Order: sequence, then structure tokens, then C-alpha cells
Amino acid sequence: MSGRLTVVGLGPGDDRFLRPRRAKRLRAQRPSMATGPILDRVPVREGQARNPSGNRVEGNRARAALAHAAQGAHVAMVSGGDPGVFAMAAAVCGEIEDGPEAWRALDLHIVPGITAMLAVAAKAGAPLGHDFCAISLSDNLKPWELIERRLDAAATGGFVIAFYNPISTARPWQLGQAFARLGRHLSPTTPVIFGRAVGRDDEAVTVTTLDKAAETPADMATLVIVGAPETRVIPREGKAPLVYTPRMAATVSA
Amino acid sequence: MSGRLTVVGLGPGDDRFLRPRRAKRLRAQRPSMATGPILDRVPVREGQARNPSGNRVEGNRARAALAHAAQGAHVAMVSGGDPGVFAMAAAVCGEIEDGPEAWRALDLHIVPGITAMLAVAAKAGAPLGHDFCAISLSDNLKPWELIERRLDAAATGGFVIAFYNPISTARPWQLGQAFARLGRHLSPTTPVIFGRAVGRDDEAVTVTTLDKAAETPADMATLVIVGAPETRVIPREGKAPLVYTPRMAATVSA
Repeated sequence: MSGRLTVVGLGPGDDRFLRPRRAKRLRAQRPSMATGPILDRVPVREGQARNPSGNRVEGNRARAALAHAAQGAHVAMVSGGDPGVFAMAAAVCGEIEDGPEAWRALDLHIVPGITAMLAVAAKAGAPLGHDFCAISLSDNLKPWELIERRLDAAATGGFVIAFYNPISTARPWQLGQAFARLGRHLSPTTPVIFGRAVGRDDEAVTVTTLDKAAETPADMATLVIVGAPETRVIPREGKAPLVYTPRMAATVSA
Repeated sequence: MSGRLTVVGLGPGDDRFLRPRRAKRLRAQRPSMATGPILDRVPVREGQARNPSGNRVEGNRARAALAHAAQGAHVAMVSGGDPGVFAMAAAVCGEIEDGPEAWRALDLHIVPGITAMLAVAAKAGAPLGHDFCAISLSDNLKPWELIERRLDAAATGGFVIAFYNPISTARPWQLGQAFARLGRHLSPTTPVIFGRAVGRDDEAVTVTTLDKAAETPADMATLVIVGAPETRVIPREGKAPLVYTPRMAATVSA
């Protein structure tokens, strides 16, 4: 009896982002258990245990899924975006490393998804057209000083920066502080994109500048992209502006 | 007569990565012209002009597609991976900025795809589980000193690093030099992943360490991921090792 755990990223928004390969996997594997916070996006199957769970307690969720798979079950664990980017795949690997030897023998499949920064970038133009980085602003799992050091490194290195987990009720000040920190290195007119719920019916993309970014509303469903010095904004009459970062970088700035 | 340009990312490898939304767009829009280096992955339609083109001369391709759309055509421009990551979307935006006013009035849609670093990461485990960056090693469009400065910033900032365009016939030494540069900051045992042609039948994923990375074969179809100090490798009997970067970073290293 060989168990299997498939960690599937559903991409942002609705099932328009569910690729055939993922849909097929979810069908073909006949998972005896499905778990994740967005189970309503997974087709219901008779006889299948369904464990909806929140975004928190990732370790518990991963252990439960692994233990179930180790008993021979085929478990599908679903989440939005890409499971490898600030999400469940790393939590599962961590539990495998710390767990019983049998968990290493499990069939583990990770199926990638469109992560939020790619979806927001496509809506706005091509802000990630040149070297870029992704930083989680959550200081639950790392000290704020480390985040500040990374902000400094990213800004002085000339990277475009995507912020995941920009803000929450428990972390209300971090995003504003991050903008202020970047303001030490970047021009006040640096383009900043707020993409909320992209791929859903209520999606909203806002383009502003670094000096006004702290006034723009954001929540946990928001992905923020801060441009590099090369990032450009093209105004368009009657349309949203296009934001892009050219691949060309002719000069080394200090 | 309102023209339209759709820039579509097909993801890595074969059509397993072609999402329904993209397939539907390619059908529904009845593009009168399709252009891109991988046209064999796009269903043939009667009466459709098909312009296969190489990976180079991006500006020429973008201008041709925009000019055609400005005449009222529906043009689909396809490429592998995500069009917004070191690919055609930024080239299209650049030509819109520099081109005639009419090009700004065009309907432009960018449809994201699974970019190579997400596909390789999913195959290897979860190496991008924590803050990470993407750097193109091509010095065609930026000076090598800028690339070195970014390597320093990324390594000292503790980012996981993904290399796009790691090597080519015209750029044979850059990848080795990049590993050497990172060796100034990172431990020789830092995990390094080489993912080649992921999603295709001949896909190959190799896990090595920074001190041996320069000996590992790579080409233009390879995506390289260099771990952060926190990145871990889990050996598994009879299976490829799992590489992951935990979300937890407890300490600030100097």
C-alpha cells in the first residue's frame, strides 16, 4: 500500500487558472482526502474525506496529510497561487525532514501554479521584465531587522521587488515601514503596483508612486510590486497605464 | 476596426502546462496572425498567418505584431514560460512606448504562464519557500559589473537565487564566474539545483553544491537555483533528494 501526497497550486482567482494537468491529476489520483483552505475549487468526489482548513497552522496540516498518506491514502493538498512560493510545499518538506523515516518513502508530487506576482504583473504590463525579487513582509517567522536588510539589498541592487503578505490585522505597520525604508534608496516617483484579488471578479489593480504608496489601501489579498529605477509607466488614454521594466540596463548607478 | 495583441505564456515543456484559459483565448480570439518561436504548440487554424520566429530580435517581432494589430488584426504572440519574466511582454511594452500613438489604443492582453523557476522548484521540492530573486545572467543588455553587484546583494541579503539565461555559446564563462562570485559570500556546501527542459520528456533535475556547480553541464534550456544559507537537502532512499527553504529564519547573520 503506497501512499501519495500531491500538493497542487490552483493559481490565483478562479478555475480559469486551473490547468488541465492539475484538473486531471485531481481526478486521476482519486484522492481519498483533500485538504486546503479553498476546497470549494476542487470537484467533489463520493467517498472522499474533505478537510477544509485555514491558512494558519501549516505544520499541523502538513503532518495530518503526511500521516494519512503514510497509511496508503492518496491525499491532495490544494492552495491558491503556487505551493512553492511562501506556501505549503516548504511546510510539507519541513515535516518530512523532521518526521518518521516512512514519510521520505512517500510519493510526493508538487504541481506548480501561477503565483500572485506573475498574475499581477501580467495585468499591469511587464514590471518583472528585468531582475526581480520576492519578499514576504510577514515577521511572524523572521525578525523585522532581517526584512529591512533584504529591503536595503534589493533596492541598492536595483531589483524590482514583489511583496507577499504585505499586511494583516496582526501586522498593520510593516508595509508602511517597508515603503519608508525603500524611500532611503529609491526615488519618490518609483512606480508601485497594488494588485488585489487578481483573477477574481472583484480584482483591482492600482498604479501609484512610492511617495504615495503608504496611503493606498492593502490587505492580505494584495500583492505589491515596487519598481526598480529603470521601471517605466506608459500613460494610455481611456486605459490603465502600462508599467514595465526594460531588459536593457545600460549604466551602473551608484 | 479595433486591433488586439495577446501575449501568451505557454509555461514550460509541453501542453500539460497549457491552461484552459489560454487555450480558450487562442481559440476564441481567432488570431489572424500567430507569432513566436514555438508555434508548433499552437493549434493550426485555417486562414491564419503564422510567423515562426527565433528567440532573438525581440524588438522586431514586437513591432511587427503591433503594426499588424494596429491594422485591425487579432494577433497572438506565444512563448514558453511566462511572457513577463525576461521575455516578450517587456519588449512589447517598450515598443508601445516608443511607437506611434495608435499602439497605445490597442487592446493588449498578457496571459501569465508557469515560469521556469516555479517548474524547476516544484520538481526539486520547495527551494523558493522563502525570500528569493531572479537574475538573468545575460550581459547582452546590461554590463557584467551590474550583474556582479546584484549577485553580491542577493547573496549577502540571504535570498535564494534563480539564474535565467545561465549560459550560451556566445556567453560561455558567465555562469562559472557567477558561482565564483557567490562563493565569496556563501558556504561551499550551499545546495545548487540544475533543472533542464522541465515539463518535457527529456527533463533532468540535478542537485549539487556550490563548490561543484561549475562542473555541472548547463545550456540555454537550463534554469539554475542557488540556495540561501537556510536551504536544506533531505536525502531519500531510492528517490531524488528534496531541496527546500524553510519559511522560518530565526537569526540575522552578518
